[in-house]
Amino acid sequence: MDRRSFLKASTVGAGAAAATTLAAPAYAQGNRTLTMVTSWPRGFAVLDDAATYLENMVKEMSGGSLTIDKKAPGELVGALEVFDAVSSGQADMYHSADYYYIGQHPGYAYFTAVPFGGTAQEVSNWYYHGGGEELHDELGQIFNLKGLLAGNSGSQSGGWFRKEINSADDFNGLKFRMPGLGGKVLGKLGASVQNIPGGELYQALSSGALDGLEWVGPMADERAGFQEVAKIYYTAGFHEPGSALASSVNLDVWNELSDQHKAILRYASMAVTQYQLAETLANNGAALARLQAQGVKTLQFSDDVWDAFGKASAEVMDENMDDELFAKIRASFESSLAQSASWINKSDGYYVQQRVRVLGG
Amino acid sequence: MDRRSFLKASTVGAGAAAATTLAAPAYAQGNRTLTMVTSWPRGFAVLDDAATYLENMVKEMSGGSLTIDKKAPGELVGALEVFDAVSSGQADMYHSADYYYIGQHPGYAYFTAVPFGGTAQEVSNWYYHGGGEELHDELGQIFNLKGLLAGNSGSQSGGWFRKEINSADDFNGLKFRMPGLGGKVLGKLGASVQNIPGGELYQALSSGALDGLEWVGPMADERAGFQEVAKIYYTAGFHEPGSALASSVNLDVWNELSDQHKAILRYASMAVTQYQLAETLANNGAALARLQAQGVKTLQFSDDVWDAFGKASAEVMDENMDDELFAKIRASFESSLAQSASWINKSDGYYVQQRVRVLGG
Repeated sequence: MDRRSFLKASTVGAGAAAATTLAAPAYAQGNRTLTMVTSWPRGFAVLDDAATYLENMVKEMSGGSLTIDKKAPGELVGALEVFDAVSSGQADMYHSADYYYIGQHPGYAYFTAVPFGGTAQEVSNWYYHGGGEELHDELGQIFNLKGLLAGNSGSQSGGWFRKEINSADDFNGLKFRMPGLGGKVLGKLGASVQNIPGGELYQALSSGALDGLEWVGPMADERAGFQEVAKIYYTAGFHEPGSALASSVNLDVWNELSDQHKAILRYASMAVTQYQLAETLANNGAALARLQAQGVKTLQFSDDVWDAFGKASAEVMDENMDDELFAKIRASFESSLAQSASWINKSDGYYVQQRVRVLGG
Repeated sequence: MDRRSFLKASTVGAGAAAATTLAAPAYAQGNRTLTMVTSWPRGFAVLDDAATYLENMVKEMSGGSLTIDKKAPGELVGALEVFDAVSSGQADMYHSADYYYIGQHPGYAYFTAVPFGGTAQEVSNWYYHGGGEELHDELGQIFNLKGLLAGNSGSQSGGWFRKEINSADDFNGLKFRMPGLGGKVLGKLGASVQNIPGGELYQALSSGALDGLEWVGPMADERAGFQEVAKIYYTAGFHEPGSALASSVNLDVWNELSDQHKAILRYASMAVTQYQLAETLANNGAALARLQAQGVKTLQFSDDVWDAFGKASAEVMDENMDDELFAKIRASFESSLAQSASWINKSDGYYVQQRVRVLGG
């Protein structure tokens, strides 16, 4: 933790920094129940799936001695209030996407996804073996959180539109939902960007409050029903090439857990990423085919539009560099990503190109 | 399980099919120790790493009530004897690569990797959400095994050579190590193919018993020291685009475990894949750079060579189609792979192409 980041965060973070002085909730001996507030309505594909798998794995592996009491938005706090609720000790842990909390600290973007960042695999490489987990904890010290990642959406779709995007100028004035640093990038292109919780998106798109939005990918987007109110779907996006989900725990609560329960939470979180990401990627293809059968037109942004995304993304990243901890996290992430990609592009990447060339499809 | 596969397997499987009649080892009440035989010498990068993470995660999450006693090759049985040892009840579980056991049943190839098959992610998609795990268990019924996957090498290197491969003819007469169905493909191209355990490869390449070999990838290959005795390294290969490691358990032993211990073994195995694969892919880039600094020349096979791999691979797969269970596993795998790739190529794949184009590298 550096003091400069701390001071900046404490002015932004709605008093969260003061949470370290609050007493941790008292627990009965033996069995423990952790209240987990989430940003996902019950049954929301991909996101609530990951939270549910975490709940189930922890219960099964602990033989019931550690249980998670999962709360949907509104049951205890709102969808985007879960970070502050856990930071302050109002809840024990959350399941959410940390880039919703770039107002608390911009470095949190890296613990979900950043523009032109890593795929799900590249994010895991960094998190577990490139210093990411330690930096998550360094950020967490400011907000009284033990950082954990549990789940990943894979590469997120470019999003839902009512009109085709033929040049970067078409984003000018567009009312669009995109959280995190990606949203700030679209802002540079003139979009009117909003971060609206997932549970409120269908209504916002239907009513015209939004002209377009990005949510997750075919499996989650189909369940949310966006195909009923928009028909143009860009499959690849610049903004979230592999969005991690977080299952972070109030640090006082974490410190009181037994070593066994800590291990169960940490490894269950890893297993959730393995299991839920596979489910998402196993199902996206069929979901996309069903969307197309319902009249959805799939497109890719042109090279010119990708170039505009790239230029605006570099500007957004650089604007945060006066924060020392952001700069430290960025340097760590980019170094790991370059290392990962230097091999993956020559192996998996080249292999898939050849597979497509030799076998087709 | 189908009887035809069973009968075929029982004539090939060195008596393994009879194992269901053996009694499971008796355990003391409460704490359990599972003897795990492995195919990896202690300290072998990637492979023994995965086995060690499994051992540690199980111990930590069970609070010591379930422990794994890991045995290197030679401590109880040889590197490639672990399957039969667990099938027969001589050991409780193994950590190995199931494609070593295509002599027992050719369907086991799919539980490691097949030529022109899935990346690590695509294999997980199939295994956990496309019917793979159930088919692993169906095969396991024949051999008295509960199937589990724990670990993945990522896309394996094309291999180490003393001379460049300028056409498919250059494989003719080459003494080369490659296990699984990939080895049978090189056999079609005229190579003299051998499956030699990892711990014996350096000596075989040094002595000239082998002209070349494939092992895993830069991190594991550097540790094995192949750069000391061969200087040409093909980075992408057709044969193992994402090799899963297996941690399967004797079925009688599995059935006697508590639900809690079963859950710990199953989810720990998933967490191992998440954690170890990330480690491998985080480190391969730097390992490759060190290999290059030691004079290793990195190459890719030409399109013509890839075409020859493709033609021979299709022949090898088709030769096994008289086995009904192989055909069933192949159909399941290929259906899942097509679904996975139909989305991934349009999202992650397109994204990475644009990232390389916009940012370079």
